[in-house]
Amino acid sequence: MTIEEAKTKLAEIEKKEIAYDHAAGILYYDGVTGAPAGTAENRGETLAILSEAQYALSTGDELTEAVEFLFAHKDELDPVTRRIAERKHKDIADLKKIPVEEYVAYTRLLNESESVWHKAKEENDYASFAPYIDKIVETQKRIASLVAPEKDPYDYQLDSFEEGLTKEKCEVFFAALSKEIVPLVKKVTSSKQVDDSLNQKLYPVAIQEKLSDELMAFMKIDRDHCMIGTTEHPFTTGFTKYDVRITTHYHEDNFLSSLFSVVHEGGHALYELGVSDNLTYTRPGGGVSMGVHESQSRFYENIIGRSKAFTSLVFPTLQKLFPEQTEGKTAEDMWLAANKSEPSLIRTEADELTYALHIMVRYEIEKKLFSGEVTSKDLPELWAKLYKEYLGIDVPDDKQGVLQDSHWSGGLFGYFPSYALGSAYGAQLLDKMEEEFDVFGAVENNETEKVNSWLREHIWQYGCLYKPTELMEKVFGKPFDPTYFTDYLKKKYAAIYGFEA
Amino acid sequence: MTIEEAKTKLAEIEKKEIAYDHAAGILYYDGVTGAPAGTAENRGETLAILSEAQYALSTGDELTEAVEFLFAHKDELDPVTRRIAERKHKDIADLKKIPVEEYVAYTRLLNESESVWHKAKEENDYASFAPYIDKIVETQKRIASLVAPEKDPYDYQLDSFEEGLTKEKCEVFFAALSKEIVPLVKKVTSSKQVDDSLNQKLYPVAIQEKLSDELMAFMKIDRDHCMIGTTEHPFTTGFTKYDVRITTHYHEDNFLSSLFSVVHEGGHALYELGVSDNLTYTRPGGGVSMGVHESQSRFYENIIGRSKAFTSLVFPTLQKLFPEQTEGKTAEDMWLAANKSEPSLIRTEADELTYALHIMVRYEIEKKLFSGEVTSKDLPELWAKLYKEYLGIDVPDDKQGVLQDSHWSGGLFGYFPSYALGSAYGAQLLDKMEEEFDVFGAVENNETEKVNSWLREHIWQYGCLYKPTELMEKVFGKPFDPTYFTDYLKKKYAAIYGFEA
Repeated sequence: MTIEEAKTKLAEIEKKEIAYDHAAGILYYDGVTGAPAGTAENRGETLAILSEAQYALSTGDELTEAVEFLFAHKDELDPVTRRIAERKHKDIADLKKIPVEEYVAYTRLLNESESVWHKAKEENDYASFAPYIDKIVETQKRIASLVAPEKDPYDYQLDSFEEGLTKEKCEVFFAALSKEIVPLVKKVTSSKQVDDSLNQKLYPVAIQEKLSDELMAFMKIDRDHCMIGTTEHPFTTGFTKYDVRITTHYHEDNFLSSLFSVVHEGGHALYELGVSDNLTYTRPGGGVSMGVHESQSRFYENIIGRSKAFTSLVFPTLQKLFPEQTEGKTAEDMWLAANKSEPSLIRTEADELTYALHIMVRYEIEKKLFSGEVTSKDLPELWAKLYKEYLGIDVPDDKQGVLQDSHWSGGLFGYFPSYALGSAYGAQLLDKMEEEFDVFGAVENNETEKVNSWLREHIWQYGCLYKPTELMEKVFGKPFDPTYFTDYLKKKYAAIYGFEA
Repeated sequence: MTIEEAKTKLAEIEKKEIAYDHAAGILYYDGVTGAPAGTAENRGETLAILSEAQYALSTGDELTEAVEFLFAHKDELDPVTRRIAERKHKDIADLKKIPVEEYVAYTRLLNESESVWHKAKEENDYASFAPYIDKIVETQKRIASLVAPEKDPYDYQLDSFEEGLTKEKCEVFFAALSKEIVPLVKKVTSSKQVDDSLNQKLYPVAIQEKLSDELMAFMKIDRDHCMIGTTEHPFTTGFTKYDVRITTHYHEDNFLSSLFSVVHEGGHALYELGVSDNLTYTRPGGGVSMGVHESQSRFYENIIGRSKAFTSLVFPTLQKLFPEQTEGKTAEDMWLAANKSEPSLIRTEADELTYALHIMVRYEIEKKLFSGEVTSKDLPELWAKLYKEYLGIDVPDDKQGVLQDSHWSGGLFGYFPSYALGSAYGAQLLDKMEEEFDVFGAVENNETEKVNSWLREHIWQYGCLYKPTELMEKVFGKPFDPTYFTDYLKKKYAAIYGFEA
């Protein structure tokens, strides 16, 4: 075998793996965008069969031999191929440690679990979903013990979403956040509340759909390769850079909810769409980590989307689409409504300031689930206790409590910290970006392509060629520091609520 | 190997084949229900890769050995297994005659062709789509010469949709139809035209969507396993009996168009949903042939849907949903509007009487394409000539002419005759059904489950265990006879247009 032959073989098989990802992804997308409940079981059968075929492909001799060869010659490879070979070498070794039966059963479990969660949330019936939490945690702990027996199983989960992240790092990070955020929340809640009456009116869903299109246009999202759907829980999925999907959830009595979902998911979509062409049809063709992914989505949602510049840009369109609802209101009113901060029940509806507290609740629970300190039956009580402790509010039911997020039903234990990390990355990105150009000036002038170009150049194009901390330090020119985020919050909320920063 | 072992192996691999069908089907469904144009190429890559994997599965040693074993012991098998083994034996032999490269390239060609057709129709640009017609016909002729060199290639196509159908049989069948239909059309066009002003008003699409739900309820379609989407060209696809999709196309200025699309596709859906449980996850789990499938859809669309009984059933709902548009109108007006007959340009909008003439145009063109008498460049002119000859009308552009149907872009040459055949099967089915119960009485009383039970018992449950002619003769208790259809038309149109039958 020559290096060229091994590269060709690897590329050919990665392309096939991506085709299976695509098929599974579209089945999932179909399942959450309208397929009736009775179709879930059949979909589970298909997903299980595809996952078995994919397992065979991803652990097969052809791929293994090509990757072993490249790995043995890694010093002779160009940097891109080297990174692909190294990752693939680890992926194959990890996957081979999981028996195929376990792998397929896990696929089937997640499909079933998502369908049960959906119904459980609708019917506020936690008891029906609870067993799935235990089953998934048990499976993940078993997989972690096979793949990385030296690691704490929750560290294994964290690392799978953000390479290098550990409980230890989380503790330091969350301590830094809560030290600044908790007193800031107190300051905000003792200030005069801002007026959000603009968001209290009714906005017909059909017109909100038009607003979504306008928002995507403001963000310069390539609609020829990105569509928007409607789901219970908004998300983004990219099959390759040529086919990216975002979804949102419309509430007639809260148009800002969908607006910020679209801007958030649009940030994810831009990242996927912005990967370099030569990485498409390779598995490093997606974002580097969930923390960096969330840094893009939360950067767009909060730092851009909840800025005065963005509300100034969007408000005339809002007036055009909703003349009655916006009568007598200004862009400033929209900015205030978009930044109203108060402790609340639902994470995805939370303001930028209290958001991290919602994440900390989930982080504490996940840690305890993985250490065995609690099981599913303890969660509603623990959830209520932590919401009281961190946010000072009572949880009326499981639908607005432990059942609210889809993540656990999809096996995404260890994902939540990425959101907080992403927010913090975003603030440091802003600082760096502002050294180079007037970010908010560009946004206000509908020149978001300047923001996009900068992010494409520094982050998007690389897919996951770098490790997340490597990439972030390369962009920042220094280590990651959450103080940028807490300083940003202090300054922003002082302006909104009119106290000294 | 024992018979039981061979059966288990066959069932296991058929289940996998169905999973690949499901994945490909959902990718197709996604492509036509909203995915942006720029995603087509990526989807083509995935479909090509899946089709290669499916080819390997369907021609692999494991399956071949099991099927050869069962085929060798066919006299010892139960009738269901015997039919499955015989079909599978032929399928494997046929598929093995097609080189895998040809098979995969064909999948890719069809995906590309569908996407090009879609744009060509939108832009009335036949030239961009024409080369695909030639490429597809060439490929199909090449495949026919490999699989069945003894057969005429168009007969091969006809047989692939309706086992046993040939050009020779089509000639006889279409001659029988045109002998009766052509003079009947003349009689109708020289009569006083019926009033269809009910269908001339504007019906908002959002409310038409509600009407679709009501129609599916009248038809007793299990919504837990059947959803409805919106596409340019209405169709039905069933992944298994547990997941069936229908689609429709709404026109604000012609609500009857979507209404009859829903009833037509609903008829297909009922068939797929009604297959026996023990055939699910086997490939005979779908309908027996396209002619029989169309007999169900066109039976529901025309014989049931365009009956006085059905319009009486539906009209109160129409009044409830569209009080303004239906003011001063009656169920009788709806029945008349639904049966207005006049030569027209668009097949899917054609009335029940002139419909067969549209089919004959396509049949004549397909025959000539496969005999080499014409190529794609000749079609617009030939189309115009045949529409003038058969329907007496001029074709203003290709969008309303040769580009109107999606079939050719999807490789469905030889499919069209199934529609006419299905219509004719349907009339003979009605005759048989009426021997046993009052069909239209049941419909008017919202007891369509009686119709469904009869069809399930006689047709749906069997999937494709029987050959189409076998099944039809079993149901009819005598050979198929198109006179039932022409007699039905004569009687019906005499009543509508008030002349002697």
